[in-house]
Amino acid sequence: MPPAVVLLTDFGTRDPYVASMKGVIASRCDAAIHDLTHEIAPQDVREAAWFLRTAERWWGGGTIFVCVVDPGVGTARRILAGENGGRVFLAPDNGLLTFVDLQTIVSVENESFFLPAGSTTFHGRDRFAPVAAAIANGTAIAELGPRVSEIVTLEHESGTIVAIDRFGNAITDIERASIPFEPFAVRIGDTVVRRVSNTYEGDGPFVIVGSTGTVEISVAGASAADLLQLRRGDRVEIIRS
Amino acid sequence: MPPAVVLLTDFGTRDPYVASMKGVIASRCDAAIHDLTHEIAPQDVREAAWFLRTAERWWGGGTIFVCVVDPGVGTARRILAGENGGRVFLAPDNGLLTFVDLQTIVSVENESFFLPAGSTTFHGRDRFAPVAAAIANGTAIAELGPRVSEIVTLEHESGTIVAIDRFGNAITDIERASIPFEPFAVRIGDTVVRRVSNTYEGDGPFVIVGSTGTVEISVAGASAADLLQLRRGDRVEIIRS
Amino acid sequence: MPPAVVLLTDFGTRDPYVASMKGVIASRCDAAIHDLTHEIAPQDVREAAWFLRTAERWWGGGTIFVCVVDPGVGTARRILAGENGGRVFLAPDNGLLTFVDLQTIVSVENESFFLPAGSTTFHGRDRFAPVAAAIANGTAIAELGPRVSEIVTLEHESGTIVAIDRFGNAITDIERASIPFEPFAVRIGDTVVRRVSNTYEGDGPFVIVGSTGTVEISVAGASAADLLQLRRGDRVEIIRS
Repeated sequence: MPPAVVLLTDFGTRDPYVASMKGVIASRCDAAIHDLTHEIAPQDVREAAWFLRTAERWWGGGTIFVCVVDPGVGTARRILAGENGGRVFLAPDNGLLTFVDLQTIVSVENESFFLPAGSTTFHGRDRFAPVAAAIANGTAIAELGPRVSEIVTLEHESGTIVAIDRFGNAITDIERASIPFEPFAVRIGDTVVRRVSNTYEGDGPFVIVGSTGTVEISVAGASAADLLQLRRGDRVEIIRS
Repeated sequence: MPPAVVLLTDFGTRDPYVASMKGVIASRCDAAIHDLTHEIAPQDVREAAWFLRTAERWWGGGTIFVCVVDPGVGTARRILAGENGGRVFLAPDNGLLTFVDLQTIVSVENESFFLPAGSTTFHGRDRFAPVAAAIANGTAIAELGPRVSEIVTLEHESGTIVAIDRFGNAITDIERASIPFEPFAVRIGDTVVRRVSNTYEGDGPFVIVGSTGTVEISVAGASAADLLQLRRGDRVEIIRS
Repeated sequence: MPPAVVLLTDFGTRDPYVASMKGVIASRCDAAIHDLTHEIAPQDVREAAWFLRTAERWWGGGTIFVCVVDPGVGTARRILAGENGGRVFLAPDNGLLTFVDLQTIVSVENESFFLPAGSTTFHGRDRFAPVAAAIANGTAIAELGPRVSEIVTLEHESGTIVAIDRFGNAITDIERASIPFEPFAVRIGDTVVRRVSNTYEGDGPFVIVGSTGTVEISVAGASAADLLQLRRGDRVEIIRS
């Protein structure tokens, strides 16, 4: 796979931030540029980390992930470059890489790869973008700065709704394969969902194993989140049915 | 034209679905990947079918359309691959291809082209994406499965508002060329619009021939839909003026 | 840098307009196609002009900017092609290019570059897109039409909030380098902001030099625009502090 630079930000597309980053990248390398998303809620590092966990596994060697959800931009927080299977992940050291398995991590400090006279407020354009282009052009992450062994990670307690998707599915982090008994049901607060289905069919709420192998709560043709008043962060319990 | 994979979904871009599909495609072929839209209303097959009708004609040979608006994912509904003029259309057999002229259609059943151990809930990633990459790499649709002669089509009664666009233009499916008399006016419920214009100028509502040759109702610098309370699905009648 | 066609419109991505433009471009040239934005408010030429001013400087030689915010489509307004440093800007002659420095400008009138039998309502697809593809394929702007010396420009009085971004930062057009005294504060209506910061830290509103060198009003982790009731177009004054 030829190099691809893929972008994950909370910038939206109404403002000129993403357009500026793409200009820096496109003017410095020939890599394909793809959007993962720019719709992470502003400064929501946890949402970004979970998005990345779900999406990254489908991208092959040569992919350079540029992840900019960066409330601490301009402060002493580090920029990390991590490597896994011929892929590179760039992100602020704020927990965004919590759920990615990384073999080697460096702190990006070599200023010769940054735009000259960059800002303190937009490292996405002034640091992440030119560094991504340099990697696409063959720079090894070891050239970017010193190796680090500890990075910031998010605390995460399994058994949680981690996302409500556009269809109103409530997506948990509970791996189907980890449930030790059969049959099972799902309890969220006072609500218990007992029906288990493999497809979006039938009446009322049901449990379904989602496309990344975790338990989801759904309603066919409607929003389970609206119907059952589910929200990201709600605790979920697996019980015997 | 080198192969291009173009995506039409109802996934939005806030969730990791499109990002996952693009990863599968980009890691398996070198085709350019373009977004047609991901903003089809959730599970609105009719809106998707009309979008595709409007957009597809502008894409040349080598284009692979990946259309995933798929309320029946995981059920017995088929996945279709249709061919027209060196272009391939992939879509669930749910009416999405109603308005596309196809020379050959197959039912995509050859599992060797799917991701191994795929989900029942996300065929966009597990079936459509790898099949699109295979086609970009030279696979003929005849290799994907048996030929089919009948597909699901949407019932459609001409004389309807098929879309309200971002500018508030009400777009009908009435071909300008099909109107047998002059001068004509447009009636929607109790509202009659008599002024016909070639440009977005002048006061009040007017009829204009839109960019795909059908009749539209517009207001210069404002939303005709808001002003006249027009909605998708409203019936439209052409009358003598 | 190989040619890249980059798109700036007010079309949104829910309607088939951008998808149609991309089809025309992709079927006629091999240039990479990138989105700058499609979220300019409908027909807001001033917003588009400011977006372009901020984003264009990051794109290198070979970039073809296709800017379609075009309330006057189909009227006598001209389409302009301007050149700057090996880059080409296509836009209606309505002020969109006000803040771009152009060395040569032509009026695009050579119909042999347009789609045959094009519409009066969608020049983005029928004129801008094929002309952009022709430029990507090597056509010089001198072939597109006669040179022009005067173009429409927007009146602009410096000292204004030009944008509220997704984070609620209020972005002014006041260049930091132009402020003649120290220390300074910012006044908007009855509100005075005295704290100046280099990073998004601390309590309450502060002034920060944004990523394009102009003064911004921000609040760490919150929306300055909401908190201080700031809006695009508000007048901003620099005062001694």
